Amino acid sequence: MSKLRFNISMSLDGYVAGPNQSRDEPLGVGGEDLHDWVVRTRAFKAMSGNPDEGETGLDNDRASVWAQTYGATIMGRNMFGPIRGDWGAEEWKGWWGDNPPYHSPVFVLTHHPHEPIEMEGGTTFHFVTQGPEEALEQARDAAGVRDINIGGGAATAQQYLRAGLVDEMEIHVVPKLLGAGERLFANLDGPPDYLKPVEVLGSPRAAHFRYVRAA
Amino acid sequence: MSKLRFNISMSLDGYVAGPNQSRDEPLGVGGEDLHDWVVRTRAFKAMSGNPDEGETGLDNDRASVWAQTYGATIMGRNMFGPIRGDWGAEEWKGWWGDNPPYHSPVFVLTHHPHEPIEMEGGTTFHFVTQGPEEALEQARDAAGVRDINIGGGAATAQQYLRAGLVDEMEIHVVPKLLGAGERLFANLDGPPDYLKPVEVLGSPRAAHFRYVRAA
Repeated sequence: MSKLRFNISMSLDGYVAGPNQSRDEPLGVGGEDLHDWVVRTRAFKAMSGNPDEGETGLDNDRASVWAQTYGATIMGRNMFGPIRGDWGAEEWKGWWGDNPPYHSPVFVLTHHPHEPIEMEGGTTFHFVTQGPEEALEQARDAAGVRDINIGGGAATAQQYLRAGLVDEMEIHVVPKLLGAGERLFANLDGPPDYLKPVEVLGSPRAAHFRYVRAA
Repeated sequence: MSKLRFNISMSLDGYVAGPNQSRDEPLGVGGEDLHDWVVRTRAFKAMSGNPDEGETGLDNDRASVWAQTYGATIMGRNMFGPIRGDWGAEEWKGWWGDNPPYHSPVFVLTHHPHEPIEMEGGTTFHFVTQGPEEALEQARDAAGVRDINIGGGAATAQQYLRAGLVDEMEIHVVPKLLGAGERLFANLDGPPDYLKPVEVLGSPRAAHFRYVRAA
């Protein structure tokens, strides 16, 4: 069966987004710094259409592992856009431009129904109002043998961690201290100890903690 | 001037002690696992009188840096012992045995006055009721040119971080998930951004994040 996978960058003090998220700063104040290690890598530059740029090395190796195209992606509504509550009249189509980097179906968790939005390059946003397990079921149907990625953010990851549904995760810890924002490890009703640590790797810009579901 | 230094082991989910601390489990449930990386090292074995045992390598290098004898140590009361509130009739002399590993003055933060307790090997516990800045002043007088160590725990570290008094810190992040306990990075009124990251190092058992006060 395809795996449900999940990777995210986290500050040393535990935040995956900074405080005061807004249209101008979707990742909150200081949140972009969490991704400094990845935007420098060759794997990331290649995704942006510049395959001959970027750094190689351990960070690039870890970015490459996660930069594959998934069979489907699941994300929380705040990762899709800044609109809260009713969708209203605005035709928001996601933070990700006309040709989003997903190139496969994306399932957006929301309490507010919305028609699917088809983008260029194979990405269609589907809006799921029946909760995380239903979203996973739809993602599995769409993904076939390929893996499913949890795009984020913290609340979405927490729902899947809590439900025992994550097969593999990698947390990239960067030496930044944000002081406030969205904590990844909170609201979990105990540790997700079905996930076992298999690797800790360090580069000057981030340490990578990898976990897989215990056999 | 001597430096105020601080190092501590933290779970990936941000805890430096587990939940339900007690006499039998001073570090809380699961808390001892945070120190697994260090107790295996040659530097740690040497402190326990077995200098020919233990592992070498990066973890041992980091443990060695921190295993020096300080001019003085500051700790919170819970790190001294399990007694809360009034000291009562019991003659508690610390978790650390007759010959504690400090071999220099230790300043214990408490709201309850207590006579100094002199132990074997050069350690004397002094009890300071006038707060963390007074404890630091007494520690500086005692330490002379040598550095001062914050022994822990979380609340004590937070007081010094918040007051802008820490000169150097190293956080050893282990891939354990505790789910509950004492968080290190909490109650800080904003990030301690006078501390700048200078190094991230990874071993299979821990990643080491080192910070120093900005010049």
